[in-house]
Amino acid sequence: MSEHEKSRLTVEIHNKTYTIIGSESPSHVRLVASLVDQKMNEIQDSNRHLDTAKLAVLTAVNTMSDYLKLKEDYATLLGSLNKKEDK
Amino acid sequence: MSEHEKSRLTVEIHNKTYTIIGSESPSHVRLVASLVDQKMNEIQDSNRHLDTAKLAVLTAVNTMSDYLKLKEDYATLLGSLNKKEDK
Repeated sequence: MSEHEKSRLTVEIHNKTYTIIGSESPSHVRLVASLVDQKMNEIQDSNRHLDTAKLAVLTAVNTMSDYLKLKEDYATLLGSLNKKEDK
Repeated sequence: MSEHEKSRLTVEIHNKTYTIIGSESPSHVRLVASLVDQKMNEIQDSNRHLDTAKLAVLTAVNTMSDYLKLKEDYATLLGSLNKKEDK
């Protein structure tokens, strides 16, 4: 599949099927889906009373938090690299 | 607030309130919540038929995809840094 071709993939997350359309590789989409499914199960295990909507929102919150922290780490690392290049 | 103290913060995401408990700073939690809310609105704008649960799952999928791509970029950057250090 060429890089710019749109892929259409059906994945299962938390017992529901989703069709993901995008330019990502099928292996990337499958990995993403399995990680989201896993995170939803983890959050559900510690909050049994949550409905699917709240569970999914908290999963998104959790993932966004990890994303922002990694973005900060990336910026720090980039800063170190630029410092080394200045030397 | 000390870094290891648990914070308890109420945020609004997609017209529902969520209590987020964790060790993150209130400003981090508020930023995360507003980004998730924003992403949910964006996805809803292009998929008007989605219910909140599916919308939130797709928001989590979208964020997880960005996270994985950033993780790869981070690993690449770390590789460059290590190479420079070896010189």
